[in-house]
Formats: sequence, structure tokens, C-alpha cells
Amino acid sequence: MRVLGIDPGLRNLGWGVISSEGSRLRHIENGQIRSDGSDLAERLLSLHQQLTEVVARLVPDAAAVEHTFVNKDATGTLKLGQARGIALVVPAAAGLKVAEYAPNHVKKSVVGVGHAGKEQIQHMVKLQLPGVTLAGPDAADALAVAICHAHHLQSQRSLARVTAVSAS
Amino acid sequence: MRVLGIDPGLRNLGWGVISSEGSRLRHIENGQIRSDGSDLAERLLSLHQQLTEVVARLVPDAAAVEHTFVNKDATGTLKLGQARGIALVVPAAAGLKVAEYAPNHVKKSVVGVGHAGKEQIQHMVKLQLPGVTLAGPDAADALAVAICHAHHLQSQRSLARVTAVSAS
Repeated sequence: MRVLGIDPGLRNLGWGVISSEGSRLRHIENGQIRSDGSDLAERLLSLHQQLTEVVARLVPDAAAVEHTFVNKDATGTLKLGQARGIALVVPAAAGLKVAEYAPNHVKKSVVGVGHAGKEQIQHMVKLQLPGVTLAGPDAADALAVAICHAHHLQSQRSLARVTAVSAS
Repeated sequence: MRVLGIDPGLRNLGWGVISSEGSRLRHIENGQIRSDGSDLAERLLSLHQQLTEVVARLVPDAAAVEHTFVNKDATGTLKLGQARGIALVVPAAAGLKVAEYAPNHVKKSVVGVGHAGKEQIQHMVKLQLPGVTLAGPDAADALAVAICHAHHLQSQRSLARVTAVSAS
């Protein structure tokens, strides 16, 4: 199955798609969507259109979005929220269930500890997806979210099998 | 011309459409879009679909969204931001330019003072749109945003006329 991970942001929205077969992960594609200019509605529309194109082209089966809490001012939080709105609604409009993960959860799943730096995440993403070329730090974060969600879905499936075996 | 006003919120998104001919305003329709449940992406998709239906059915020529600053916690600001993302992208996707107004600007335009209460806004909206039945306080706020934007567009047109006359 294909898993889409998104690291939302108004200026830079990172995305990454991986394929997960059993416990084997493979990189499909990653990128960063930029939106510039002073017209907020146009920037959000640009994010919406570009992300819709990615979903239509790569046809993921599941999606997850990083649940970032900014500790900056309310203006920054509002901006991030607006970009998150787009990041959540685009895969939902394609009929996908959209999971959310806190950054510490993502780091723990990918690096093993909850307080890893950017470089450490990029290193582990490269290790787990051999041959990947990262479009940037936001794309790396997005791939980490996809890996985290793939692990989660994998352990759900294992649990379902164990339950089915013990029930039979 | 028809002007759409939106008061964004995740649980309740208010909207109102008025028609503006010269300085004459007329009520077209107002309502509140609710979204419930625990799945955030599905709630945003529901807002998106319902608001898209309103825009397609009432075909506004211009749109404006209230630029609320919440002074609550970051979680509340993030939620509001997500709903604002939808409120901004839907009219933009229909090809409309989307204006933004701070609440004090809306109040000053509709009531005459920047610090008016909810009841005062509802009273003035009813006075300026005779015969209107308000779907609720968020719909009233949305109509106030539409009135504010109609006033702004009207004064822009007057200014353009004056400039054209003095240039001829």
C-alpha cells in the first residue's frame, strides 16, 4: 500500500509518498510545495491545487499529517492552521482516512527517541528509504510522518492477524 | 453585485450573501454550517463541501472573510486556522478575490463603533437588511462582513468615478 505523509506549512508544505509491503518500505516520491505572495486565499488555493495534483498522480491508499504545535505568536499558529486545513482536506476529498501524529510520536517511530534534531531525522529517513533524494527538510519530515504511519498500520495488521488466529 | 461574507469556525461557520446595487443593500440568504465528530479531516471536508454548494448555488461576485484573532490557547487558534483555510480556499477556487477584515473594522463599518456587542451587530444587520431572518449569531456576523465589504467596494467605485471625472 502507498502512504502519503504531509508536513504542513503555508510557505513550504512538505510531502512524501512511500510504499509499504509487509515490513518493507520503499520510497516513491517526495517534494515541497511553495506558496508566495500577499494574497492569502490565492496562496491556499495554490497549495490546494498542487497537493490535489500529487494525490491524483501518486494515488496513495492512506495519509497522515504532522500535528505541529507552534509556540510562536497567535498569528503564526493561525497561518499554520490554515495550511493544515488544506493538508487535511485534500486527502479526505480523495476518500482517504487522514491520521494525525504529534512530532514527538513521529520522531520516536523513525529515530527511536522523541527529541531528535532535523539532521537525525534526515539520516534515519535516508537509512530506511535507500536511494532517496530529499527535496528539503520539510519533505524529509513528511517522509518521516509517512514511515510512522506505515509502522502504525503494519502493527494494526499484525494485531488483527494475532486476534484472528487466537479466535479461530 | 452579490457579496458573500464568512465568519469562520470549525464547529459553526457562518455565511451570508447580500446584493449591493449602488448604495442599496438587499439580503439574499444566510446560514450556518455545522461540523461535528472526532475526525478532523472529515469535519473540514464537510465544511468544504457545504460551503462549495453555497457558492455554486448563490454565485457571489466577491467574498470576504473575518480575520479573527483568538486570544485563547494555541489549540483553539489552530482549530480556527484550519476552518479559515477552508473559508478562504472555497471562494478562491470559484475564481473570487477574497478580502479579509478585522472584527473591529467590520463593527465600525456596520455599527459605527469598533467595540460593539453581538446584539448590537444583529440589530444593525436587521436594520440594513430589512426582512432578514438570521440563522444564528455566526450568520449575523457573516452578513456584517458582507455589508462591510459591500461598503468598501462601493467607496472604491465612487473613488474610481471621481478619478475618472477629474482626469477627463
